[in-house]
Amino acid sequence: MSDLAFQDCYPDDYSHCYGCGRLNVQGHQIKSFWDGDEGVCRILPRSCYSGGMKDILYGGLIASLMDCHGAGTAAAAKARELGIEVKPGALPRFVTASLKVDYRSPTPVGKEVELRAKVIDIEGRKVRVSVTLATDGTVRAQGELLMIQLKEE
Amino acid sequence: MSDLAFQDCYPDDYSHCYGCGRLNVQGHQIKSFWDGDEGVCRILPRSCYSGGMKDILYGGLIASLMDCHGAGTAAAAKARELGIEVKPGALPRFVTASLKVDYRSPTPVGKEVELRAKVIDIEGRKVRVSVTLATDGTVRAQGELLMIQLKEE
Repeated sequence: MSDLAFQDCYPDDYSHCYGCGRLNVQGHQIKSFWDGDEGVCRILPRSCYSGGMKDILYGGLIASLMDCHGAGTAAAAKARELGIEVKPGALPRFVTASLKVDYRSPTPVGKEVELRAKVIDIEGRKVRVSVTLATDGTVRAQGELLMIQLKEE
Repeated sequence: MSDLAFQDCYPDDYSHCYGCGRLNVQGHQIKSFWDGDEGVCRILPRSCYSGGMKDILYGGLIASLMDCHGAGTAAAAKARELGIEVKPGALPRFVTASLKVDYRSPTPVGKEVELRAKVIDIEGRKVRVSVTLATDGTVRAQGELLMIQLKEE
């Protein structure tokens, strides 16, 4: 059991993501962890991340958070499958092939959001992940991602 | 023919979006215009918007730009259908019901990106839009959105 977030275990060269890179000081630096078989991530977005209206969270941010959290969960799941320990530099890195988000209801600004990701299937370097985003236990958006593992150089 | 961007014509209350709101001083403030029957938007993203690697654009930003540009094009197309002139405060406002992005190839950081949106169909308050994102004329990502017009209060 590791206290490290998935994103703390990407190699340095892959840690510059605006959404989840620990070396991107201007970015969100989200952190994802296992909760049983689900990847979980909690974040309180800054109030500037509003949609058209001031009190509704920006849909682009929702898609972005799902993308990064899905990528992290895919990497951690692949590591689990391969028996790789989650430690700094050890996690394989994935890129997004496709991302689909269904927005169910407006997400309020000023609330902590909780993202939960489940692996649908792993097929070689391909990992499919479903993600939900919720506030106060209510799912506001549902996503699905196809992630592709980068080949080792 | 208007020199105003679609986003300059949203009512004030709907102009706080992090991606496209002219009243959101911390946001991207993207601007979209008609080019014939296509909505077009050009932007040079700041270098902090990298993906895992420093030289590749953040996929979450790509999804975000598609979302805002698609929403703007949907609104402008609906206004065209209704014979509404594109002028400040006049544009109907849409929210995103679903967003799908297929990432074809990495988008380089440091290049102007061009988004082009086409309306697939309009059915009452529903507008479906396809969007591409390109650099140097090469399409890097393809998206499709379902946008829903907000009801007047």
